[in-house]
Amino acid sequence: MVRISPLSGFPEWLPEGRAVERAVLETIQHTFELHGFAGIATRAVEPIEQLLSKGETSKEVYVLRRLQAEEGEEGASEKSLGLHFDLTVPFARYVLENAGRLAFPFKRYQIQSVWRGERPQEGRFREFTQADIDIVGDGTLPFHAEVEVPVVIAEVFARLAQLGVPPVRIHVNNRKVAQGFYEGLGLSDVDGVLRSIDKLDKIGPERVSALLQEQNGASAEQAQACLDLAAITGTDAGIADRVLELGVRTPLLDEGLDELVRLVEAAGRRVPGAVVADLKIARGLDYYTGSVYETTLVGHEQLGSICSGGRYDSLASDGRTTYPGVGMSIGVTRLVSRLLSADIARASRPVPTAVLVAVTDDESRPASDAVAALLRGRGIPADVAPSAAKFGKQIKFADRRGIPYVWFPGDEAHQVKDIRSGDQISADPALWSPPEEDLWPRVTAAMERS
Amino acid sequence: MVRISPLSGFPEWLPEGRAVERAVLETIQHTFELHGFAGIATRAVEPIEQLLSKGETSKEVYVLRRLQAEEGEEGASEKSLGLHFDLTVPFARYVLENAGRLAFPFKRYQIQSVWRGERPQEGRFREFTQADIDIVGDGTLPFHAEVEVPVVIAEVFARLAQLGVPPVRIHVNNRKVAQGFYEGLGLSDVDGVLRSIDKLDKIGPERVSALLQEQNGASAEQAQACLDLAAITGTDAGIADRVLELGVRTPLLDEGLDELVRLVEAAGRRVPGAVVADLKIARGLDYYTGSVYETTLVGHEQLGSICSGGRYDSLASDGRTTYPGVGMSIGVTRLVSRLLSADIARASRPVPTAVLVAVTDDESRPASDAVAALLRGRGIPADVAPSAAKFGKQIKFADRRGIPYVWFPGDEAHQVKDIRSGDQISADPALWSPPEEDLWPRVTAAMERS
Repeated sequence: MVRISPLSGFPEWLPEGRAVERAVLETIQHTFELHGFAGIATRAVEPIEQLLSKGETSKEVYVLRRLQAEEGEEGASEKSLGLHFDLTVPFARYVLENAGRLAFPFKRYQIQSVWRGERPQEGRFREFTQADIDIVGDGTLPFHAEVEVPVVIAEVFARLAQLGVPPVRIHVNNRKVAQGFYEGLGLSDVDGVLRSIDKLDKIGPERVSALLQEQNGASAEQAQACLDLAAITGTDAGIADRVLELGVRTPLLDEGLDELVRLVEAAGRRVPGAVVADLKIARGLDYYTGSVYETTLVGHEQLGSICSGGRYDSLASDGRTTYPGVGMSIGVTRLVSRLLSADIARASRPVPTAVLVAVTDDESRPASDAVAALLRGRGIPADVAPSAAKFGKQIKFADRRGIPYVWFPGDEAHQVKDIRSGDQISADPALWSPPEEDLWPRVTAAMERS
Repeated sequence: MVRISPLSGFPEWLPEGRAVERAVLETIQHTFELHGFAGIATRAVEPIEQLLSKGETSKEVYVLRRLQAEEGEEGASEKSLGLHFDLTVPFARYVLENAGRLAFPFKRYQIQSVWRGERPQEGRFREFTQADIDIVGDGTLPFHAEVEVPVVIAEVFARLAQLGVPPVRIHVNNRKVAQGFYEGLGLSDVDGVLRSIDKLDKIGPERVSALLQEQNGASAEQAQACLDLAAITGTDAGIADRVLELGVRTPLLDEGLDELVRLVEAAGRRVPGAVVADLKIARGLDYYTGSVYETTLVGHEQLGSICSGGRYDSLASDGRTTYPGVGMSIGVTRLVSRLLSADIARASRPVPTAVLVAVTDDESRPASDAVAALLRGRGIPADVAPSAAKFGKQIKFADRRGIPYVWFPGDEAHQVKDIRSGDQISADPALWSPPEEDLWPRVTAAMERS
């Protein structure tokens, strides 16, 4: 017999945990669709060379091989498939493959598993679900798309608050601000400076200053200016003033500041309090070309970003047309894992069933089946007791699953019992409905229920 | 640049195709939940030895390897993971892993991708979606579970008819009937006889008779009896009479006939016309122990079974407890692929958007954003035009995507236009709603729309 044990990095939930995840996914999907994003799904695999073109994640890729291939039937083309490690690479490929059949700007969402062969740790998994939105244009993409994406994400989390999810802060920066500032300062190793600045939270300003001087060719003054820039946060035009007070000015910096201010001001009107400019955000700025986003769960900042993204001037290109894009990706598994481990959100029951129809004796099972069918026909999730045990045992069966109602069929009059209160009333299966809040399992803040 | 081309066996749909798939999946899931099945999701990978314990599918398994592992960091434990090729193996493992935390009988559904390294062909894919239900007991599982599962599947397809999906016929047989009959006939190589009978549709009765005599130790008369048994179909107790007329009788055969008749009669009451006993069904009878199911789409029989399953006396076992189970698995990708390729079902539009809010000029985009936000807040999917182009161009933008309404914001009065009829009326974004049938994309039979 094969030994059974969980695999580290491949999380699975019990039915009650899956119910929480499902509620989170449905809220995400519903919000994406309200904003006009069309759902697509891409295959789980891509040619390895496609996955490696991004470079730095190459080590995390899972490569596929058919077991049969070991026995000498290996096809050359099949050697080169790997599991996607994000949904951006497959989406870029999908856009190129279907460009002639898509209407641009194309707004799509995609909710799927991705795989990374990383060392598993808290909030970091080998298989996890991402929920992505992207807006992609053919040739051009207006700046307001860079506002729309974080606004949609802020709205997702505003709706998730109903499930008990804490509020989020979306931290934004702009590649043009960083690059324009560093270049204006006389530092040419922009990506190197970004890598050092990215270590701020981990190693603190003094060691970052040392790094900037030792590795990125900065003087002590230049390093201090970089740290001063990184310290700026805000939600209005004041951020531009504070940056300009540092005494650096370039056209690129001006353009970046204009975009950054437009972003936080527009977001401030549409989703107040959710989006804040944070000029120390450096991760991703080496490949994003405009706005960049990171999202923290308030009170759970050490979990890291649960939704990141940014703008690419070239999400994809087929040589003739370049497709700029902007998108964000919610780390659903990281979020749900925390909701469950910290007991933040809970499902009201682990099964969909609202009503358990009792079975009086084996001969009358068809009568119980008929009651359940009537209820289901009216949209009420119903199950039939598995055996004609004593009613007390059938009630216990419902209780163990959190099923709120037990139905007792009768030749003439039926009875339905709310097993929480013990209230039992006569009822007609063609007419009776449970209260709206009992119809389907609900996911709510755990606190509310304790 | 990496060459872009589809991968054979890894199907993907355009947004309009995905909308059809989504509607199919939602109908399946809703029906499963109405019947009290709880949703779970399992990881995509299992230890290879777990995947190979079933034996015959070993050649179809995709094995995973971390790309990094090539460089000498290979962990022994990581060598042995493969992608699951069905949802039954992972479910059996999940049951054993969580037995102490699940309530039995446990009814679960699971809708996920599976992977098989088979040669792709019409209706046969390397990556495809399955939608499974199973009922599993700890120690025992009452026979009525074998009725419930095909009844739920029949109801799924009855609901799918609203999307244009043709009706199905669920063909059922019972391992005990076949085994009891063959043994009563004096044939001991039951699995061999089943393998020969399974070829009936492909090679015809004469060649099957020859096979039975050459390979399975049957006399000409025994072979004829096997063919006579396989020719029996029906939906009531008459099938038992016709089997007994063949002159074979054993306790196991009696038990099997009793179950088979109970199944078709109960199903006939609950889902008339959907379930038929078909004694030539032999596939799967080598590992199922009771009822076995295969489902054909009427008019598309050559597509093969789109939903199969059966009863296992031992779905899983941990040495102390044995878990019997019964389940069926819908081949969602096979079904959807046919719905799309034969233009059976169509989505009313490829985007969720019901209303495109026009933009008068760049300065008034916030006003258009505000209208869209009001509509979304009332549950109406709305998008804002990407540019303040001429209204004619903005209407064309909506038309290309099948968006039925264009909203023209005004300082005092707003207007909304049904771009199909050209009707334009004054409207208040806090009050106006589209007709119910325009609110979300609908999937219907393609014929209805032509």
